[in-house]
Amino acid sequence: MISTLMSQLNPSTSARTTNVSAPRIAFQGERGAFSEQAALQLLGANIKLVPRLTFDTLFTSIAEGLADYILAPLENSLAGSVHRTYDLLVESDLQITAEVVIPIAHHLIGCPGATFEQITTVESHPVALAQCERFFNQFPEIKRLATEDTAGSVAEITESGDQTRAAIAGARAADVYGGIILREHLEDHSENYTRFVLLSSEPHVHERTNKLSLAFKLQHLPAALHRALAPFAHRQINLLKIESRPVKGLPWQYRFYVDLEASVNDAEVVVALDELRSCADEVRLLGCYKAHEF
Amino acid sequence: MISTLMSQLNPSTSARTTNVSAPRIAFQGERGAFSEQAALQLLGANIKLVPRLTFDTLFTSIAEGLADYILAPLENSLAGSVHRTYDLLVESDLQITAEVVIPIAHHLIGCPGATFEQITTVESHPVALAQCERFFNQFPEIKRLATEDTAGSVAEITESGDQTRAAIAGARAADVYGGIILREHLEDHSENYTRFVLLSSEPHVHERTNKLSLAFKLQHLPAALHRALAPFAHRQINLLKIESRPVKGLPWQYRFYVDLEASVNDAEVVVALDELRSCADEVRLLGCYKAHEF
Repeated sequence: MISTLMSQLNPSTSARTTNVSAPRIAFQGERGAFSEQAALQLLGANIKLVPRLTFDTLFTSIAEGLADYILAPLENSLAGSVHRTYDLLVESDLQITAEVVIPIAHHLIGCPGATFEQITTVESHPVALAQCERFFNQFPEIKRLATEDTAGSVAEITESGDQTRAAIAGARAADVYGGIILREHLEDHSENYTRFVLLSSEPHVHERTNKLSLAFKLQHLPAALHRALAPFAHRQINLLKIESRPVKGLPWQYRFYVDLEASVNDAEVVVALDELRSCADEVRLLGCYKAHEF
Repeated sequence: MISTLMSQLNPSTSARTTNVSAPRIAFQGERGAFSEQAALQLLGANIKLVPRLTFDTLFTSIAEGLADYILAPLENSLAGSVHRTYDLLVESDLQITAEVVIPIAHHLIGCPGATFEQITTVESHPVALAQCERFFNQFPEIKRLATEDTAGSVAEITESGDQTRAAIAGARAADVYGGIILREHLEDHSENYTRFVLLSSEPHVHERTNKLSLAFKLQHLPAALHRALAPFAHRQINLLKIESRPVKGLPWQYRFYVDLEASVNDAEVVVALDELRSCADEVRLLGCYKAHEF
């Protein structure tokens, strides 16, 4: 699947890319972040990773000529949808061209040569620290220290060489900064995963797509959603995800985000979308791509 | 509205409460947190605040006899739904009895006597730091320091008395720890608000309720949601929010979370709920309450 996707993403077909063989993938965070892990899982090692500090700068990466694709987190199984990504995606002309789901596994990473018994301080982003409560309850003598970044903490402790300091981050961060994994899976809830989408400035509608992401606006009227879903329900098209959000500054309007088990290569789906357009406003096709799994 | 709610929440009507006049409200976080601000906005000052360290301990507060009510965050306008709250709520027997929406305003808080020009370090939870990018870009000489808690940072800097240290937190934290607000509204996005719900171990169906929160499970079949919404669509009952999530460990099943503009005091709504039960599994009424605003 990776090699197929890579051939489909061949940058030579893209107007914006420079003449290099590896596509440039922008992601939010530091080297070694979970986003980087997701990019490698989706596309393999032959990519050029472009770390971006904030979501705002991430979403301008293609327009600024710094990247060919953007990888953005869309939802986490514990924390929910990342509305910032949805907002920036809807406002942009970008298209979802692939998705990948990775488990968020928190490992304890120390300096080379360190043993678990030496560790006195554990550093990480507070969200990661909070997801490892059981570990800290088990070892109350270990001091926890908040930082701005999971992978960045691994960079800091390995640079210091201090064998009493460890960090909590994904396995990729240990690889990138030369740390060693002292304990695996510190996370309290194993059902912790994040779904990322690969965004392109051009639509890539491949042959074997089976998932369609849409956004549309509805007036705040009874039965409005029921009517908007009818074109898909009548054609036996499965709904995979639905979420509503109030539209900023417009108190009586809602934007719906819907994922369907469908492809725009299917003529029936095209007709259903036309019917949707007759009863909804601002219908935006966010992308048609191959689902990570069904 | 507050006094009405307080009289409805009179703890003398609750079997679990002790013989004190102020109801005990548990919330997740430290004193001065946004949750505490939400509790005060909803219920006024005559409450006893019970800070709880984690979501898991928050949700056992009533059963352990430590609190009469629980205030939990349900969604944030930028970060999305708090799935941990939804999960713990669905698994519990708790009922939503009221809701409140508060703006998340990040202020710069320093020690008494400090001026903005003295500040060299600003401390806060990384999520708060990340939501104030514009401020840090404007003052690149100010060092940012991650901590585990917004309000806890204010506690630390005021305790230190160090006039070069400031923290980013809500206004309530300045009140609680005797800090002073050096700059208001550092947040990049003004449309940042969080919706909290007040949870009770007993259903409180008041007379003037207009919002109904439900959870139900559907098989992964085409048109399943369309059919489940029909009882409400046919009766012109407005949908205020909808969200789907895969059920843990059951790959082909989804749980839907729905908010309706409706009251269980309305006989038509009761019939619609019966119709829903005939086509959905595990229909759970999360609560019927007065909406924060329509």
